[in-house]
Amino acid sequence: MNDERFQRLRPEGDEHERLTCTRCGFIAYENPKIVAGAVVEADGGVLLCRRAIEPRSGFWTLPAGYMELGETVEEAARREAWEEAQVRIALEGVLAVYSLARIGQVQVLFRARLAEPGWAAGPESLEVRAFAWPEIPWADIAFPTVRWALEHWNATRGSPLGAPATILGFS
Amino acid sequence: MNDERFQRLRPEGDEHERLTCTRCGFIAYENPKIVAGAVVEADGGVLLCRRAIEPRSGFWTLPAGYMELGETVEEAARREAWEEAQVRIALEGVLAVYSLARIGQVQVLFRARLAEPGWAAGPESLEVRAFAWPEIPWADIAFPTVRWALEHWNATRGSPLGAPATILGFS
Repeated sequence: MNDERFQRLRPEGDEHERLTCTRCGFIAYENPKIVAGAVVEADGGVLLCRRAIEPRSGFWTLPAGYMELGETVEEAARREAWEEAQVRIALEGVLAVYSLARIGQVQVLFRARLAEPGWAAGPESLEVRAFAWPEIPWADIAFPTVRWALEHWNATRGSPLGAPATILGFS
Repeated sequence: MNDERFQRLRPEGDEHERLTCTRCGFIAYENPKIVAGAVVEADGGVLLCRRAIEPRSGFWTLPAGYMELGETVEEAARREAWEEAQVRIALEGVLAVYSLARIGQVQVLFRARLAEPGWAAGPESLEVRAFAWPEIPWADIAFPTVRWALEHWNATRGSPLGAPATILGFS
């Protein structure tokens, strides 16, 4: 999208400027993207993946990634768990909805458990481990939303899922 | 996106085919889109908007619409309430997350109340009304997700928000 042929122009009848190809006139509507992921309980702790790719290579994250067209957000969360942690998971419900305007993301994170035993590093992970709560490597967590989701998971574990955590919360 | 110059081709290193412009090589990544909206309690009932635009012109819907880049999903829900129902709302939390793979949508619907008195039809609405529960025009509801969200709202009104409704649910 940094291509010089794209300029921000306002299509007729539109309230917003859109990236428009100055060669062919194509309008690239840029929409927020959905990240689907899960906090997966495993061995009494949570499953984390050490990233093999940038950004934040070498840091720990939840199995999560961009939702693709043609799948549900639930299917995306299960697919990402398989791709990144080679784990089959069962979703319990929505744990958090984090909306990050600056980077154009909405993260939908589920509470999940193992549907089958076992996990392993997928191609985008250096390693996958179940961390007991006191062992979570907080200094090496890849993204703030991972920390927030883990904290909300821990604060509500063992209870029925309530309203999902959000960035600002509501009152 | 139905333009003939776009063909589905698989970019190098990608697992999926993407719409690619055969003239300029631009790859149009199609992502699921996020619809933000709210069930707004008003006068003891809920606020519905009769659509002035297709699809489903003339039918009743929740104030809701596509999230734009640069806003949060919460801001999008408040903006849509203003645009479609000229109403200022306060969000209480996430009521439902409906993922519709076939049409590439994830709908994030909030439970909300009036932040200020008053509402009116915005440019995309023919009229806006607060319906008491027994008066909701079920036969003239625009979309299934509106019916589902209303039913979940009614089943949980007066209670703290629990886990959001989803299409399949979890067990």
